[in-house]
Amino acid sequence: MTATDDYLANNATYADSFHGPLPLPPAKHVAVVACMDARLNVYGALGIAEGEAHVIRNAGGVITEDEIRSLAISQRLLGTTEIILIHHTDCGMLTFTDDDFKASIEKDTGVRPAWAAEAFGDLEGDVRQSVARIKASPFIPHKDQIRGFVFDVATGKLKEVS
Amino acid sequence: MTATDDYLANNATYADSFHGPLPLPPAKHVAVVACMDARLNVYGALGIAEGEAHVIRNAGGVITEDEIRSLAISQRLLGTTEIILIHHTDCGMLTFTDDDFKASIEKDTGVRPAWAAEAFGDLEGDVRQSVARIKASPFIPHKDQIRGFVFDVATGKLKEVS
Repeated sequence: MTATDDYLANNATYADSFHGPLPLPPAKHVAVVACMDARLNVYGALGIAEGEAHVIRNAGGVITEDEIRSLAISQRLLGTTEIILIHHTDCGMLTFTDDDFKASIEKDTGVRPAWAAEAFGDLEGDVRQSVARIKASPFIPHKDQIRGFVFDVATGKLKEVS
Repeated sequence: MTATDDYLANNATYADSFHGPLPLPPAKHVAVVACMDARLNVYGALGIAEGEAHVIRNAGGVITEDEIRSLAISQRLLGTTEIILIHHTDCGMLTFTDDDFKASIEKDTGVRPAWAAEAFGDLEGDVRQSVARIKASPFIPHKDQIRGFVFDVATGKLKEVS
């Protein structure tokens, strides 16, 4: 049995009490962009119910071209207007540098990634960087409700980055 | 009150019963890549608890450079070895074409995105495309446990794509 098999067994239980389908557009008109971190359950931490919000996640919760793509689809085709950005304490992205990570991959595989790893040294600074990247994009129409937070993995609390 | 404010009120309730911090590496050694769709609560649908799995999400649940970046960090730095891919029925990505979406953006803003929108016409085919992209990447070391699914937004059930 793999962990994937365990999760499939859980899915059968979930489906037993599932009621669908809900409408496609997010009912709360919100898109969340958060780190992929295992300790950050965005449904729990924000009390998001099924059907309410888009959830976009990656290593760091950073804004790259693919998050701009997702946010453009979210706002332009599916009616979201608010963006919530979430980084978190004790993030893995604080523990390495792009140069070291890429050199390590090159050493192991012979191929150096052409992409940035997006490691960062300043948690709140990188939340502000994410806001700045969204504001700089011509493809995101709604930019007046973008708020950035740091989730504390010790307390479960969100702190707004001002 | 914005929807974001409502979610912040929910967070205070969540933090009241939160116990942390958990270790940084995912306890189940799993990374999930899923669509951002509002109706797909991956914590509920898979029964994922805090601390267990990385969750990566975007429009479509597709694999682009940024998902390769996240998966490389997940596997190489944080010890995950299994990948679960989840697309879903009634996906917004089935409702438009890259050409039309990008022409619409160009018409509104004067700027044509240099990126692919990653719309697709075949749900299970795109799950297989995601598997193929991961398998083709030199940056992902663990490729023997990659499984792809379609989540049914009417029933809550996952169906494996073979």
